[in-house]
Amino acid sequence: MSTKKKNRDWRATIHEVIYGTHTPAGKLFDIVLLIVILYSIIIVMLESIPSFDNKYHRFFNISEWVVTILFTIEYILRLVSIKRPSKYIFSFFGIIDLLSTVPKYLTFFILQSQFLTAFRALRLLRVFRILKLVRFVGESNNLARALKASKTKIFVFVFFVLIVSVLLGTIMYLVEGPTHGFTSIPHSIYWTIVTLTTVGYGDISPQTPLGQFIATLIMIIGYGVIAVPTGIVSAEYSTYSKNQRENDDGRSCPNCGAEIKRSDAEYCRKCGYKLIEE
Amino acid sequence: MSTKKKNRDWRATIHEVIYGTHTPAGKLFDIVLLIVILYSIIIVMLESIPSFDNKYHRFFNISEWVVTILFTIEYILRLVSIKRPSKYIFSFFGIIDLLSTVPKYLTFFILQSQFLTAFRALRLLRVFRILKLVRFVGESNNLARALKASKTKIFVFVFFVLIVSVLLGTIMYLVEGPTHGFTSIPHSIYWTIVTLTTVGYGDISPQTPLGQFIATLIMIIGYGVIAVPTGIVSAEYSTYSKNQRENDDGRSCPNCGAEIKRSDAEYCRKCGYKLIEE
Amino acid sequence: MSTKKKNRDWRATIHEVIYGTHTPAGKLFDIVLLIVILYSIIIVMLESIPSFDNKYHRFFNISEWVVTILFTIEYILRLVSIKRPSKYIFSFFGIIDLLSTVPKYLTFFILQSQFLTAFRALRLLRVFRILKLVRFVGESNNLARALKASKTKIFVFVFFVLIVSVLLGTIMYLVEGPTHGFTSIPHSIYWTIVTLTTVGYGDISPQTPLGQFIATLIMIIGYGVIAVPTGIVSAEYSTYSKNQRENDDGRSCPNCGAEIKRSDAEYCRKCGYKLIEE
Amino acid sequence: MSTKKKNRDWRATIHEVIYGTHTPAGKLFDIVLLIVILYSIIIVMLESIPSFDNKYHRFFNISEWVVTILFTIEYILRLVSIKRPSKYIFSFFGIIDLLSTVPKYLTFFILQSQFLTAFRALRLLRVFRILKLVRFVGESNNLARALKASKTKIFVFVFFVLIVSVLLGTIMYLVEGPTHGFTSIPHSIYWTIVTLTTVGYGDISPQTPLGQFIATLIMIIGYGVIAVPTGIVSAEYSTYSKNQRENDDGRSCPNCGAEIKRSDAEYCRKCGYKLIEE
Repeated sequence: MSTKKKNRDWRATIHEVIYGTHTPAGKLFDIVLLIVILYSIIIVMLESIPSFDNKYHRFFNISEWVVTILFTIEYILRLVSIKRPSKYIFSFFGIIDLLSTVPKYLTFFILQSQFLTAFRALRLLRVFRILKLVRFVGESNNLARALKASKTKIFVFVFFVLIVSVLLGTIMYLVEGPTHGFTSIPHSIYWTIVTLTTVGYGDISPQTPLGQFIATLIMIIGYGVIAVPTGIVSAEYSTYSKNQRENDDGRSCPNCGAEIKRSDAEYCRKCGYKLIEE
Repeated sequence: MSTKKKNRDWRATIHEVIYGTHTPAGKLFDIVLLIVILYSIIIVMLESIPSFDNKYHRFFNISEWVVTILFTIEYILRLVSIKRPSKYIFSFFGIIDLLSTVPKYLTFFILQSQFLTAFRALRLLRVFRILKLVRFVGESNNLARALKASKTKIFVFVFFVLIVSVLLGTIMYLVEGPTHGFTSIPHSIYWTIVTLTTVGYGDISPQTPLGQFIATLIMIIGYGVIAVPTGIVSAEYSTYSKNQRENDDGRSCPNCGAEIKRSDAEYCRKCGYKLIEE
Repeated sequence: MSTKKKNRDWRATIHEVIYGTHTPAGKLFDIVLLIVILYSIIIVMLESIPSFDNKYHRFFNISEWVVTILFTIEYILRLVSIKRPSKYIFSFFGIIDLLSTVPKYLTFFILQSQFLTAFRALRLLRVFRILKLVRFVGESNNLARALKASKTKIFVFVFFVLIVSVLLGTIMYLVEGPTHGFTSIPHSIYWTIVTLTTVGYGDISPQTPLGQFIATLIMIIGYGVIAVPTGIVSAEYSTYSKNQRENDDGRSCPNCGAEIKRSDAEYCRKCGYKLIEE
Repeated sequence: MSTKKKNRDWRATIHEVIYGTHTPAGKLFDIVLLIVILYSIIIVMLESIPSFDNKYHRFFNISEWVVTILFTIEYILRLVSIKRPSKYIFSFFGIIDLLSTVPKYLTFFILQSQFLTAFRALRLLRVFRILKLVRFVGESNNLARALKASKTKIFVFVFFVLIVSVLLGTIMYLVEGPTHGFTSIPHSIYWTIVTLTTVGYGDISPQTPLGQFIATLIMIIGYGVIAVPTGIVSAEYSTYSKNQRENDDGRSCPNCGAEIKRSDAEYCRKCGYKLIEE
């Protein structure tokens, strides 16, 4: 019984270090992890530049193996220290953690390295975990909540923008035609979105007076419509700003890994696990 | 009399399915319609890509006929199930529904298929009907109302932007001249709007130092002025967000097709038709 | 004495028609004037397109003379019907009205027509008078007041943007240099403003990795900074929206031409002229 | 003792003129300084244009020497008139003042003038001191405070934008590849930020249908995400606008140079120096 208790403590300590951010060890772990992730991203970036890859190919390869092994150890520790590993494995960050670790191992089984670079990109998804670390900056949760609350509104808006783009894209295809670069309706819709969002590459631009007139209308619509998402997110953001700093004390449930929002919580609000030992 | 009653019931059932969204059958109908419209839009898009059209021309042609027949049946059912068909025919969606159905039939009478592609584009106007369907997402009405309320304000703003564009466009025409791509005043105004809305294609760009200086002023004006529509729509949007979820229960008047806003309504607020049977 | 009285009445009637917008005759006058101004602008625009000018040169010339004579008559009537003409002559719209009328007359004295096209552009300044007419749309005054109230704030903001542009433009000149299109510091500042305001023509774009990195920073700054004028104007706009529809009844002072804001006003708030006859 | 007192007064007068803005002499000094700084910036700008530099090289050289000597005198006076010079020397404006003065002197020791132009750019950092002068416009402090308050929020936002850029940039590199201009991952990230911020140079643009589809998604994300910083700064700005005009009376501490915010202050809030003589 004492061994079991000890074992539990040992796992609880690892849990606190890996998942928690309210102890010095937990903070240190997160910062070190942040640095390793950034390092691995920079390595992938530099590897893609031919002149660098030719010179330092060996160094990049070793670096990637070191990072891959570190991530593997971290992944195993995460699995071991949590009560219900399946909850973690199928969570958003669980999947990203696995995908970040896998690519380098796959080089053993699949030989075409050219094809594998596509998998390497998945490692970059790991950057989303940084977002979780940044939580101690305190504000990202607010942003996330504001975006979540305005989800359906933004969906309706994006949907409306797409409909307008299809309509105007087709009209521009008929007005300008393939000879002026509007080679097909999908290509024309691409141009319309480039214009509507005020990006304006200029790889395709209207040549006929009528086309330029319609383009002008599209720009003014885009100019006016840009106000809508701003209004939506602003309203939601200011609402969520008010009820912010009350919660979020950096602990997380040792059973399911969910954040503990209130410092006086006795049970996990997600899985009901008892958080306080009498 | 019983037959008439029965007939009335039969029509009322169709009305509920086609116009209403609050019964399971009504919801299913709208979702199926949504899929058919999307399918027809994708067909028109793919048809415009030469490589696809060469391969699958026959398939695209048959698909268009199937969609055209489906839309024709739907249009007839809409006419039959409503009390006052003329109200529907001349409503916004009535006209769009007709225009979406017509183009394929016209190929019998007009032989130049090249010219007919222009009519085919009208079919895409049907996408606006999707907006009506999306209403069950719940938010599009809010957006529509906010835009309606700020209509005159946006008109004044767009008018002001146009005046500034005419003025600055003429000045740029005189400063840069036809040799630097500003071939005429309308073309110069087109460039000004491209710049003012921060689209910036780069197909025309100022070459003289004075022209670049004025361009800089136009950009900073555009940068400052972009705030105005945002302020307008934001203010209206936040006002309309408050008094939202109270109304809108998905029913519509069987006489004129207008939406029924309040669940306790006994008469249609548009045509006065009695909604409740004693 | 009776003649003087009559004379006064005659002038008062003209005043009401030309300056006022609250009588049917006054409204009609403003709408006709609006149409004539728009017509004259379209003529100037079409004249600048070589293919149109070759065909219809005679028609454009006659049109311009008709418009010039109409504006001359209008200008004289404005002078005659007002008590203190000097106030009108040196007001903003007084100067624009004169400048709009003058160019065509100058063709008698100055022979180089090429040079005169510069003066013709001033006629387009007349478009600002339309803004005054649009006042009956009711909202433009609100916009004008909101912009006026946030004047100093916008000045500080634009000043800050210019300082940042000078600093970043100089750095980019040193980093990229004349070989990559950054030929001088002013040209480099022009590029910085093009980037900071998210216009992005692409006529000049950074080629070195360091230049592209700094460009990235400029874009993100521009992206964040765009929020500032929006915040300023939004705040001012919502404040001025509240206390709007109370005043503005379309009358104007027969002495100095200033708008009469309150319907219960007995004296002009600008010159103290008695507005009500006992 | 009397000499010491006199000496103190002499220093206090200089302090008031140089650091303060609430006496006529202090205001005059700041305006003259503003003009000299602007003059020196314009000289550096014109010098960078080859055609100007060839003609007026001698004049530019003399102008720079005059400005350098004036700045040197000003810097010495600032050091002399303050109680604790070390506080000024290591303050933000102290460092900028020194860096603005130094470059011309360095031409004696380092011979390659080509290399020195890099140092000359530092002189432009002096423009930040103008911001301090503009304080009397009254609003810049508000803006600065609003930006300071939303610092962490903007940091989180920019961080999020960077992560999304890294992720999407890598995907675009894999989709488009070096043959379409996406030569490396960092270059691809540069393109993503150009697109996400709606700048859109068009020096690189996607060629494949899949690439154009992803580009479209990036634009719509950028379009929606632009609302977030606007919401943040707007909220902060409106909060700080309320409690503004209460403080800031233009005086500054004769000991450490910090601004005195409250007119009833008896001690400097930064160094505790007694401000009022009994």
